[in-house]
Amino acid sequence: MMVTIAVDAMGGDNAPDVVVSGVIKAAQKGVSICLFGQEQRLVSLLSSFDLEWKTKYAITIVHCPDVIGMEEISVRHIFKQKMSSVYIAIDHLKQKKVAAVVSAGNSTAIHAMATCIIERVAGVLRPALGTFLPTVYGGRVYCLDLGANTDCKPIYLEQFAYMADIYVRELTGILRPRVGLLSNGHEPYKGSSVVKDVFKRLKNSSLNFVGNIEARDIFQGHTDIIVCDGFVGNIMLKTAQGTVKAVTQIIAQEAKASYLSRFLLGITGGLFKKIKSRFDYANVGGALLLGVKEPVVIAHGSSTSEAIENAILFAHEVVLCQYIKKFNQTVQATMQKVSIALDASNSIHAQSQDHPL
Amino acid sequence: MMVTIAVDAMGGDNAPDVVVSGVIKAAQKGVSICLFGQEQRLVSLLSSFDLEWKTKYAITIVHCPDVIGMEEISVRHIFKQKMSSVYIAIDHLKQKKVAAVVSAGNSTAIHAMATCIIERVAGVLRPALGTFLPTVYGGRVYCLDLGANTDCKPIYLEQFAYMADIYVRELTGILRPRVGLLSNGHEPYKGSSVVKDVFKRLKNSSLNFVGNIEARDIFQGHTDIIVCDGFVGNIMLKTAQGTVKAVTQIIAQEAKASYLSRFLLGITGGLFKKIKSRFDYANVGGALLLGVKEPVVIAHGSSTSEAIENAILFAHEVVLCQYIKKFNQTVQATMQKVSIALDASNSIHAQSQDHPL
Repeated sequence: MMVTIAVDAMGGDNAPDVVVSGVIKAAQKGVSICLFGQEQRLVSLLSSFDLEWKTKYAITIVHCPDVIGMEEISVRHIFKQKMSSVYIAIDHLKQKKVAAVVSAGNSTAIHAMATCIIERVAGVLRPALGTFLPTVYGGRVYCLDLGANTDCKPIYLEQFAYMADIYVRELTGILRPRVGLLSNGHEPYKGSSVVKDVFKRLKNSSLNFVGNIEARDIFQGHTDIIVCDGFVGNIMLKTAQGTVKAVTQIIAQEAKASYLSRFLLGITGGLFKKIKSRFDYANVGGALLLGVKEPVVIAHGSSTSEAIENAILFAHEVVLCQYIKKFNQTVQATMQKVSIALDASNSIHAQSQDHPL
Repeated sequence: MMVTIAVDAMGGDNAPDVVVSGVIKAAQKGVSICLFGQEQRLVSLLSSFDLEWKTKYAITIVHCPDVIGMEEISVRHIFKQKMSSVYIAIDHLKQKKVAAVVSAGNSTAIHAMATCIIERVAGVLRPALGTFLPTVYGGRVYCLDLGANTDCKPIYLEQFAYMADIYVRELTGILRPRVGLLSNGHEPYKGSSVVKDVFKRLKNSSLNFVGNIEARDIFQGHTDIIVCDGFVGNIMLKTAQGTVKAVTQIIAQEAKASYLSRFLLGITGGLFKKIKSRFDYANVGGALLLGVKEPVVIAHGSSTSEAIENAILFAHEVVLCQYIKKFNQTVQATMQKVSIALDASNSIHAQSQDHPL
């Protein structure tokens, strides 16, 4: 069976142009792609890239009249948009007409739709979105949630830690990934009330929990995983981005100050470009939504065409190696074990009360 | 009357050495200082700096046998330490034996003690700690809370915004400071449930509220004030610090790669030192705790002696210009106005239920 990746052509700050450009690049590498979006626009874009796209590449189009903007107001509003490219793409995944979905659109909308349409893995209360960040010594640290989970109960963060543990183990081969909990101090008593509760849970868990980690140490490689809620994760990620941007802006200002420094910074400029791209998650490609039954890859809204291409290739690889199936089996078994080990009645109560949206 | 500044000699990562060194510098500029800490140790330290300190400078010592460590477990535990340098210093302030307190110690302890011993300004639910951060175009942005308020109700953040507005107006002369609310997206519907509620409150307030601000824009000078809870503020501040540190580490690594780049970076190295210090809040000096009746200046735990000196000079200036009195009068009047304008019954209910710890 041919593996086809669904791509939300209308999602992202520079959609559909950048998305289509990324799709062409992935198709050139032999990936079969189904584009979801406004047909006429997509046909003309594809033709402008390559007039013979129909015969040369395995690209098909499913017409979707609506687009969910990056500014859509509420989840309730989003769910009314059943003719949108995201909705139809995810519905195709649910019906197994495609093997995975890639979107650079409104992540709240994708997260919400994927959670409700595709279904969560049994036992998972909140699917989560993570990404690998670089560390200064060449390693990587997997941070989650960076998605839409802004109001988290302690059990959600505990589950994020378990999902991240399985993900990092399988992806990197690290046997016992070190799990850190993002807090406002390394001491166990530091944190919001939720974080303090999570600390206790992780301390009593089977995970390799190394304690609280402070935000100033995220790039120091002290842990393989950093767990946080989606609101705090967003602040962390975007502060890092914003700081790198500010540093490069200050350097540019200083360079204007004298001929000598302009000359010197001109020569070393390549380095700063490299550093900036190292911290820029728009280049990363895409992040797998953990905890839903089928592969959904969410790319950054300001993705470049290379990032879209990478996200598609990543989704393709995930499908080919049947990664999601294996991952989800382990997650399901782990959640079962954890909820049995925990105060069973509490856990069941929380789960039954817990509607994903 | 001679204005005397109380300095907690035992607070901070490098106490008492660095603190005493900072105290000598401030005393050389004519400030009268009362040191709180272990007398014998302080006498020998002062003597090692200057044998004639007793006659040359207006430095006195109040012996305090106990020290509150940076690792103290809980607020309850902290309050048992009535023989600690922080407790006794703040108690002296309460009794008006000194005019202000400066400490680089455990900020949770100082915050808690100041709130309970000195009392809050009428109407203020939670005192808050803010600091000015640099922006790329030479301006500054005042962020609060960066202190111990980790679990905030919407009304706390609303009050932080009002206090910051008054503080920034008086300190900078900006007539209508632009107030931003830190969130995970600029759209009004983005944020945790608390942040969304605060958005509505600030939108309906008399403040110059410019909406949500994303963490990637904190250094871009879009606002004069950024409001957040203490947990998120800590993550933001320390991520910025950690990112600058990571960037300089990567630059150092790259410099090792070749003679040429080592040479070039050697010449431009001063610039990176400058950038690092611009983002390093350990150099800032101290932050005034807003919302308590007397001036308490909290310096960073890893303060240098210059930072301690600056914090003392700042506290001294605050006392001389009677700043706290004026500030607190305006805060009190504003809180009264706000709580009348707001749903009065709700507000009174929240306030009466609200114990500071």
